[in-house]
Amino acid sequence: MVERPDNLAQIDQAKSQNRLRTGRAIDTLKPRCLKVALLVQGPLCSCKGRPGDERGLSIGLRRSPPGRSKRNKIAMQVVMLLYPRFQQLDLTGPFEVFARFEELNLHLVWKTLDPVIDVNGLRILPTGTLAGSPQADILFVPGGPGQISLTEDEQVLSFLRRQANNARYVTSVCTGSLVLAAAGLLTGYRATCHWLSLDQLGYFGAAPVSERVVIDRDRVTAAGVTSGIDFALTLAACLFGEERAKRAQLAMEYDPKPPFVGGTPASASPELVASLRAANAAFQKEREEVAHRAAAALQIV
Amino acid sequence: MVERPDNLAQIDQAKSQNRLRTGRAIDTLKPRCLKVALLVQGPLCSCKGRPGDERGLSIGLRRSPPGRSKRNKIAMQVVMLLYPRFQQLDLTGPFEVFARFEELNLHLVWKTLDPVIDVNGLRILPTGTLAGSPQADILFVPGGPGQISLTEDEQVLSFLRRQANNARYVTSVCTGSLVLAAAGLLTGYRATCHWLSLDQLGYFGAAPVSERVVIDRDRVTAAGVTSGIDFALTLAACLFGEERAKRAQLAMEYDPKPPFVGGTPASASPELVASLRAANAAFQKEREEVAHRAAAALQIV
Repeated sequence: MVERPDNLAQIDQAKSQNRLRTGRAIDTLKPRCLKVALLVQGPLCSCKGRPGDERGLSIGLRRSPPGRSKRNKIAMQVVMLLYPRFQQLDLTGPFEVFARFEELNLHLVWKTLDPVIDVNGLRILPTGTLAGSPQADILFVPGGPGQISLTEDEQVLSFLRRQANNARYVTSVCTGSLVLAAAGLLTGYRATCHWLSLDQLGYFGAAPVSERVVIDRDRVTAAGVTSGIDFALTLAACLFGEERAKRAQLAMEYDPKPPFVGGTPASASPELVASLRAANAAFQKEREEVAHRAAAALQIV
Repeated sequence: MVERPDNLAQIDQAKSQNRLRTGRAIDTLKPRCLKVALLVQGPLCSCKGRPGDERGLSIGLRRSPPGRSKRNKIAMQVVMLLYPRFQQLDLTGPFEVFARFEELNLHLVWKTLDPVIDVNGLRILPTGTLAGSPQADILFVPGGPGQISLTEDEQVLSFLRRQANNARYVTSVCTGSLVLAAAGLLTGYRATCHWLSLDQLGYFGAAPVSERVVIDRDRVTAAGVTSGIDFALTLAACLFGEERAKRAQLAMEYDPKPPFVGGTPASASPELVASLRAANAAFQKEREEVAHRAAAALQIV
């Protein structure tokens, strides 16, 4: 039985020889365990990923636990970064969505295997370390106050750069985009972030966009905290088609009914927006200073 | 310095003497550390909790980590049940909301302190055990496939009954309501559940209601998975007022944009609903059989 990296290596090799793009049947690649395969030929939606990055995907089997590669099938590795003082819903929302697609192997990685504590004290166990991480097909970074210390953490930034180099999608929710930006991974891209920090993307040569989910080539970034669910369903539709994304949405009963209008600065009262800005001013100043330093290190400003 | 249980004990004692309900100032209770107090006099919205259950709440301090009682202030204990194969977003959504209210101490409890593994493999560490749990002011049960084994677990059902007896609110998301129902805690109440299992509430003498969040006296139940965010914001508005709930909503950028219509059976295509029902038929049959047995044990059917 061949595990996924070997299968994908075969496919990557074939791609480099331009075989898949010519429409040659995927089974000529002879991945020994591939029972059911579909060839994603071109974009399913506006989210296109890397040009020419078609993948063989098998369907119909149960998902493996996080951190374990699927055997007997070609799968995609979703590498999700954990870190101290991250904002757990940025990650747990997408995790819930991605977990419903059996082709996706979910990996939660950090420097060690110790529990990672989110900004509100929720303790989640990683499935692996940065050093032991598989190559991501989808690289994901959540946001949260701990993002500040990551912005100048060369070990993390190098990890993200290495991973992004061969990832199909480089993604984030909330201020996770500032970490990607500090790694130089959003320079020249349209991207979004939590509304309080959106303008800071500009320091890194990204074009800030005030939208819920922003797709620019293979970069997919989402706005604050709760946007992760919308982000992951959108990406799932890109990968697996609208019908399967709709199925996940129905299974999660995702027909949100926010009790109030006002989940964005545009729809909230100006007084509330001003009050929240004021309450966060000191922390945002610190975030800005770190962003300026990190951008300088990138030699962008 | 007096920790919360003593303060609340004072308040409970006062309540029993009908002092708070007479409008007597809360500071006559002399909780030694109460700096800033507000007396929640009567309902703030349609969610009324137990009649006469006014509480003194302090404001303005930072939240303690989960599992630790706040010192120096009167706080409310939110006891959230973890269990194997629960659906993590049922819990992590409300956790994210509740964590933004410093009066709320969040406790994640299970039989042991070992990591609890959700249905998709996410590993979360409890903050305490059932045996060591504080008395809940808000008792919360998430749903998920593991709910089936809880339905006949006398240790868990007894824990929930004991806790509910003195809780201000008894709450659930998704099939968590079936666990509450199996403990006899929804008999005679209007309640909701994930759409696939909603009718099973009827076995336990509850009145199934197809709504996102259902409030009936001190029982607050929510629909499938993603409804937990709506549930928690609704409850937060009941407890702390609309302005503070709106503030949390804006901070979480909760202005959801589901990529598709169809998050409920009413809005999805009949074919998709039928397909999802068919895919879950075997599991739902098992869930139904267990529910019938548990209801019989309650001597309701």
